[in-house]
Amino acid sequence: MFLVVGGDLRQIYTAKKLAENDRVEILGFNNNITIPDTVKKHSTKKADILILPLPVSIDNTEVNAKFSNESIPLSSLPSMLKEGGVVFGGKTAGLENIFPNTRIIDYFKREELSVFNAVPTVEGAIQIAMENTAETLFGQKVLVTGWGRISKVLCKVLVAMGAKTDVYARKCSDLAWAQINGCKAVKNLEYLEEYNLIFNTVPACIFTENVLRRTNRNALVIDLASNPGGVEFNTAQELGIKVIWALSLPGKVAPITAGEIIATAILNSLEEMN
Amino acid sequence: MFLVVGGDLRQIYTAKKLAENDRVEILGFNNNITIPDTVKKHSTKKADILILPLPVSIDNTEVNAKFSNESIPLSSLPSMLKEGGVVFGGKTAGLENIFPNTRIIDYFKREELSVFNAVPTVEGAIQIAMENTAETLFGQKVLVTGWGRISKVLCKVLVAMGAKTDVYARKCSDLAWAQINGCKAVKNLEYLEEYNLIFNTVPACIFTENVLRRTNRNALVIDLASNPGGVEFNTAQELGIKVIWALSLPGKVAPITAGEIIATAILNSLEEMN
Amino acid sequence: MFLVVGGDLRQIYTAKKLAENDRVEILGFNNNITIPDTVKKHSTKKADILILPLPVSIDNTEVNAKFSNESIPLSSLPSMLKEGGVVFGGKTAGLENIFPNTRIIDYFKREELSVFNAVPTVEGAIQIAMENTAETLFGQKVLVTGWGRISKVLCKVLVAMGAKTDVYARKCSDLAWAQINGCKAVKNLEYLEEYNLIFNTVPACIFTENVLRRTNRNALVIDLASNPGGVEFNTAQELGIKVIWALSLPGKVAPITAGEIIATAILNSLEEMN
Amino acid sequence: MFLVVGGDLRQIYTAKKLAENDRVEILGFNNNITIPDTVKKHSTKKADILILPLPVSIDNTEVNAKFSNESIPLSSLPSMLKEGGVVFGGKTAGLENIFPNTRIIDYFKREELSVFNAVPTVEGAIQIAMENTAETLFGQKVLVTGWGRISKVLCKVLVAMGAKTDVYARKCSDLAWAQINGCKAVKNLEYLEEYNLIFNTVPACIFTENVLRRTNRNALVIDLASNPGGVEFNTAQELGIKVIWALSLPGKVAPITAGEIIATAILNSLEEMN
Repeated sequence: MFLVVGGDLRQIYTAKKLAENDRVEILGFNNNITIPDTVKKHSTKKADILILPLPVSIDNTEVNAKFSNESIPLSSLPSMLKEGGVVFGGKTAGLENIFPNTRIIDYFKREELSVFNAVPTVEGAIQIAMENTAETLFGQKVLVTGWGRISKVLCKVLVAMGAKTDVYARKCSDLAWAQINGCKAVKNLEYLEEYNLIFNTVPACIFTENVLRRTNRNALVIDLASNPGGVEFNTAQELGIKVIWALSLPGKVAPITAGEIIATAILNSLEEMN
Repeated sequence: MFLVVGGDLRQIYTAKKLAENDRVEILGFNNNITIPDTVKKHSTKKADILILPLPVSIDNTEVNAKFSNESIPLSSLPSMLKEGGVVFGGKTAGLENIFPNTRIIDYFKREELSVFNAVPTVEGAIQIAMENTAETLFGQKVLVTGWGRISKVLCKVLVAMGAKTDVYARKCSDLAWAQINGCKAVKNLEYLEEYNLIFNTVPACIFTENVLRRTNRNALVIDLASNPGGVEFNTAQELGIKVIWALSLPGKVAPITAGEIIATAILNSLEEMN
Repeated sequence: MFLVVGGDLRQIYTAKKLAENDRVEILGFNNNITIPDTVKKHSTKKADILILPLPVSIDNTEVNAKFSNESIPLSSLPSMLKEGGVVFGGKTAGLENIFPNTRIIDYFKREELSVFNAVPTVEGAIQIAMENTAETLFGQKVLVTGWGRISKVLCKVLVAMGAKTDVYARKCSDLAWAQINGCKAVKNLEYLEEYNLIFNTVPACIFTENVLRRTNRNALVIDLASNPGGVEFNTAQELGIKVIWALSLPGKVAPITAGEIIATAILNSLEEMN
Repeated sequence: MFLVVGGDLRQIYTAKKLAENDRVEILGFNNNITIPDTVKKHSTKKADILILPLPVSIDNTEVNAKFSNESIPLSSLPSMLKEGGVVFGGKTAGLENIFPNTRIIDYFKREELSVFNAVPTVEGAIQIAMENTAETLFGQKVLVTGWGRISKVLCKVLVAMGAKTDVYARKCSDLAWAQINGCKAVKNLEYLEEYNLIFNTVPACIFTENVLRRTNRNALVIDLASNPGGVEFNTAQELGIKVIWALSLPGKVAPITAGEIIATAILNSLEEMN
């Protein structure tokens, strides 16, 4: 039996997906939140597997549970788990103190989760671009920096939608891949005037003052790089360049999909244990 | 010299595009609206070519000019045009009374305008879908009805984004094209339970009560068919099925592109005159 | 019961496909040709439906049956068919004299057959291009003339493989479609020097001496247009431009698929009769 | 000045590409081979940069030079190079004995060369598949093993051509990427009966007797894995399964492109030296 505790809408869809093959109970959602029929309210039974949210906790004391009427102390969790049970969570650092001698698995570290999460991230980025521009993506000159997971998926969608997609990266082999995937390779950031839309995926400050001064003032920059991002925000603001910092998109734009991706990572992890 | 009169933001971008090669003047935009440097305010000169908006007029008396401080009577237009000049407009019926003995061309009837307009329509439809669903398009089961201009472009984008796209159409050859383009052919609307997202492009009432009763209650139906649309709205509402009637998307979601498309149609038309 | 008579390998796969749901007998294949287990040798039973090959006959006297040891006179066919039975064939002109008062259907005239046949035609054309060039299609400048069925599918594949694909067509709306599908629109044949690979799909003499003189001498021209083709062959030869006239590709490069396409057209036709 | 020595047709196109910006001389091609005008015959001048073929040598004594009338001993090379010059070659092991105190660069080890080479490899593989099957790739069930460079490009083309492409790989993240790119993930090789076409890209014996016994006897297996390949050839032969071992495709199917790829790698390498 899986016991799913806390989190946001994603946890409900993680639970729903797990319930396709197993009994799943859930805890930490008030009555305003609809729970699928296949997922049961938490009983008094102990769970074989505990599923904690992403992140497990914000204050290291309580479970991150925004839809719960009551707080759920981390210290209350061990009593819900059978001896020999397994704990899954996203960003589990510190959990080993709560669960000594227990197998704890951080699903957020599984590579396939990061890979799959690129999809809702990219769809969210596309949505933001559409909402904030008066041109179609089709036919538009777009710059994407970096050639990591998000960039690969983003470029695939942009090219498919007919955007003229240029990729800036430093490694020759990354630029080779970009070209094979229908993008133009850009070796430096000298000529930025022509782009009205720029996606940054590199988690390093690429858009410094120097670079921003060469950027079109009408450009929209969508920064998909995690903290601290890749754009000098203050400088961009002074220059009048619009920057949207888009973080944690999967949970925001596609909680159902994001929850299913977590469930998939958990199931893969369990399969590998056998 | 082109004189562009009235309309919404699209007219400004039509003007801007035409100004790449010719002198363009504009009339009917108040001071709050930014006009590109290359487009000049209306002078006292008579125009060779008059560009009216889409639609030319709503009341058959004044030019459709939402950003104008003053009304522009249709009857004031002929004095702005040189003898032998040409009038372009979108939906020009009735204009022949204002401009007797004048060449009047309805750019809205040009096939390539309708074809190109499918692109902003589809991007708008995708944006609406993204904004109103909690799943990614990737991996989702989607139904598209019809195999006209919009459907062809929509299916191309959906398939490219990884949606499992089914096409309902009546003609075997349309279904053949849909299959060649990566969609599954659907010959009837018996099995609708599996679709969470449905795009209607057929301008006939396909989603009757019978069909809606077979539709998933959680489905989102985006109706892209022009008036009267393809869904029995009242019945859908009673059944709790969400329907979004998305009309005139090009001007709404991508006025720049929509304006450029109009300019392209005008230029093609002029080229054919020579 | 279907009786399949004569033809080449395609007929065997038409028979095999039909045999998925019905009894199928076959006639006109010698012992060297492997017939699938599900297809039976011709018995003495009369057929409900007779399936003749494409074309039905070459000399208007015998069934076109290259793998048959004996000739099969057209006049022998009526006795094989039940009264009220239906005859299918490809290019059936004249057959009404053999089968008076009988329903005769020319499957070759069904639009979906022509649409589906574009797929093996295009794969055959791609194969020919690969076999006759020392460059990859990826990155190559390719010209495609026309925007009919074959051109649409061909451009889809070329663009997907990374060829820089230009389309020449006369109608603005065709060029609009080509652009939407990732091609560059070409309004005239002035600049042909840059293409090493040209596919003609227009059944009219486009590549006249004038045009060929502007064509790169190292270019390969693959002519997919049916008789009389679109290239002045003699002139091309004099100029040293290699032309490959590629006709009837479906039966040559993919007889299995071509046979299944015929079966699909027959089944669609039967379904519409009900 | 570049001096290009020996090799096959690829070397000529490497030379041609390099000659776009620099003086290039060539040595090791007899008079039957056409050399582009921009490439000069070897003079008595010493070169700044020596370009040796891929592989540099087959016997470690002479330059690999199949189109040369005379043998070119490796020992004759140093006198052709200026002091301080650079030597490029493919598979340069042992060359340091010939060129002591000289910078030797093995372009075959550059990652972008391997990436770009996936393109001609894949086009060659597609050509082989087309030539050896009677079905279109469109609609066909295809299995690809592995998710390396070749597999990624191969799957992209197969999916674009409409093949139902399944990918077998062991890592969950590789399977995630395959799914994102439109393929179905296959976790084991239990169900092989349904594939008529299989591409192996894994350089390990995956198609053992056990696996081959589950493979369709009519299947075509194209093995793209370098020596020793991924198929038990003898067993396959006994079982009547056709295996084509396709090695070194870039030079065979697209020598022009393969030569340009080598030139690109050399130019990238030189750029990085500055």
